[in-house]
This record gives sequence, structure tokens and C-alpha cells, in this order.
Amino acid sequence: MAYRTTALRIDRDQALRERIISAALARVAEGGFAALTMQALAEDVGIATGSLYRHFSSKGSLAAEVFAVASQREVDALAATMRGTGRPEQRLGAGLERFAARAWESRRLAFALIAEPVDPEVDEQRLFYREAYAELFIELLQEGAALGVFRVQQINLVAACLVGAIAEALVGPLSPPARAAREAGYPAPSLAEVSQALVTFCLRAVGAPLPAEEPQP
Amino acid sequence: MAYRTTALRIDRDQALRERIISAALARVAEGGFAALTMQALAEDVGIATGSLYRHFSSKGSLAAEVFAVASQREVDALAATMRGTGRPEQRLGAGLERFAARAWESRRLAFALIAEPVDPEVDEQRLFYREAYAELFIELLQEGAALGVFRVQQINLVAACLVGAIAEALVGPLSPPARAAREAGYPAPSLAEVSQALVTFCLRAVGAPLPAEEPQP
Repeated sequence: MAYRTTALRIDRDQALRERIISAALARVAEGGFAALTMQALAEDVGIATGSLYRHFSSKGSLAAEVFAVASQREVDALAATMRGTGRPEQRLGAGLERFAARAWESRRLAFALIAEPVDPEVDEQRLFYREAYAELFIELLQEGAALGVFRVQQINLVAACLVGAIAEALVGPLSPPARAAREAGYPAPSLAEVSQALVTFCLRAVGAPLPAEEPQP
Repeated sequence: MAYRTTALRIDRDQALRERIISAALARVAEGGFAALTMQALAEDVGIATGSLYRHFSSKGSLAAEVFAVASQREVDALAATMRGTGRPEQRLGAGLERFAARAWESRRLAFALIAEPVDPEVDEQRLFYREAYAELFIELLQEGAALGVFRVQQINLVAACLVGAIAEALVGPLSPPARAAREAGYPAPSLAEVSQALVTFCLRAVGAPLPAEEPQP
């Protein structure tokens, strides 16, 4: 009996922890990490703030876990496309398009994950996940370089360049100063334009053939 | 007399403030923002911690100012090369080489400025300075696109890609997970290799002619 009670408590604790993470993710997707306060979250979940602190010792550690859950989903989605079928340059293009579309659909979340100023614990996770993205690109670049479709020498460095370019392209236009600039008269590009410009940039950068050269201005 | 006394005090305050910033910069260049504690800094400057707080209300605001001073120097150095003489693609290449060399010489500082997990006030400044770098690239891309040497459509987006690629290339290899990977057997590239790979990546990405195609593997 004692064992069953303990197991039941562990299950309940686990279920509550998942509800907390899920509610926290919804808050971040809606208003960024700035909207993730322990009190508001406890209210969302319908528990006392004290109970919340029994599961997460600080807002920073909660934010870091929410970040990891959301980022892992993006890494998995990108990995599925980049390890799929087709030639390496097609998979690179398709991966970028998918990543851009997901970021576009959840812009507030994308900004929160990539660039929102937030607790140092989240910054630590950012470094870790940038490395996870880089690993995916390294894998694909090695494959494409072996086939001669990518002309790259320093594969680790080129992978880092791709990670940086993608993050900045998708979040640069969404960052507060960029938004301000847009409000001052810059036209906002569409997802199709952003996606095509990003794919062109990255394919050219790795010396890959373009699907079709974009029309000259 | 009252006026002169006040003016003298303002001068002295200003001089002390500059000594504080300079000592803080030395600490960050040596050990990153992690090494920037109010107590250690007060000791470096030879003042009481309380006096330090009269000039900077918090460690975050001090860190943000140190960040801004150091970043502005980098932006100015890059601007001097990119607005110098020569064709746009040459100036882009030269600007990247100079930026890479400066980051290489002060790797600890470069990591602190670009990626070290730190107070949100510094993250705010990071967004601001990424925009300042992007502005420099936009200027050069517009000039090169008008001359037909850069084939880019979405200039704002391409500028953001360049900023991201450069930051990640120079700091990715310096970040803690990347260093760990290198210790596990990856060879560390030289400045010349990093610099050439970065220039090749960026020139190709904007559709510019390369100075000389690198030898095929």
C-alpha cells in the first residue's frame, strides 16, 4: 500500500508539473517571458503560489525549463525535415522554409525564444540550443560537401553562420528597434518574401545551386 | 564661487565615472561580466562600494553602460572600414576581416559582448547594437545593390542575416559548449581560416564575386 501511495503521488506531481509547464508555455507564447510571473501562473493553473515554488525553485529555473521544452520542439521539427528525403540542398531549403513558417506563426514565441531579454538561466539554455541547431547543420553540410553540392571548408564555422543568420533574420524584423523602424515607414515583408530571401541567402552562402535564380530588380 | 565649486564637483564626478567605466571594462575583458562585481570593482578603483552605488544604481545599469561603451568602439571600427575607400564588396570583406581580428584579439570580451548570459539590461543593449550593426550593412548593401555587385532583394533581412552570421561565427566557436566539443577532438581553426571562411560565406550569400575562389577540397 505504501508503495502504491508513493507511486500515485509521483504520478500526480508529474501531472501537475506538466500542467504548469503547459500553462507557462501559453503565457510565453502570448506575452513573452515578461508575462511569465509566478503569481499569474499560479492563478492560471489554479494553485497557490507556494505550491508552484515546490515544483520550481525560482522563476529563472521555470523559465529555463519552458524555454527548453519549446526549443526542443523546434529542433525536432527542423531535424525531421533536414533528415528527410531529397537532395541535401533541397532539405536545407525545406528545413529553412519550415522553420521560418513556424516562427512566423508564433512570432511572439519566436522572439521570446531567440532574443527577449530574460534571466541568465534562459541565456544558458540559448547557448545550449544554438549548439543543437548547429549540430543539425553540421550533419547536413557534411553530407552535402561529400556529394559536392555544398562548397564549404570550415563546416563548424559555416554551421554557426547559418544558425546566426536564421535567428537574426526571423527575429531581427520582430525586435523592438526593428519594429519601431518599420513603424517609421519601412514596409513589412511577407512570410513568402522572408522565407525566399532566407533560403537564397543560405544556399548561396554554402555555394549550393539555387532552385531558380530570383528575378533581377 | 558657488558656481566654480559646482563645476569642479561635476568635473570630478565625471572623471571618477570614467575611471569606474574603464576599470569595469578591464574586468569584463579579463573575465567577462561574471567578473564584474560591485565589490571587486570598488576595490580596483580604490573607492567604497557605497560611492560606486552613487554613480551606478545597480550592477545591471553599470554592466549596460560598459557594454555600450565597448560595443560602440566595435561599431565605430567597423563603420570606418565599411565607409572607407574601395568597391563595396572589398569594403565588406575588409570590414569582416577587421571585425574578426578584433574579436580574435579580445576573445573573452567578444564572448561577453555577444553571448555571455548576463543581466536583462545588457540584453536590451544587445538588441540595440545589433540594430546599429544592421544599419551599417544596410547602407553598404544598398550601395552595392545599386552598382549591381550585390544581388539582394530584401536588404533589411539580408543585413540581419549578416549580423547574425558574424556574431555566431566569432562567438559560436568560443561558447562553452563549442569549446567542450573542441576539447573532445575538433581542431581549433586559426584566425586566418575563420576570417576567410566568414568572408567567403558572406560574399557568396549576398551574391558578390569572391576575391579568389578558395581551392576545392
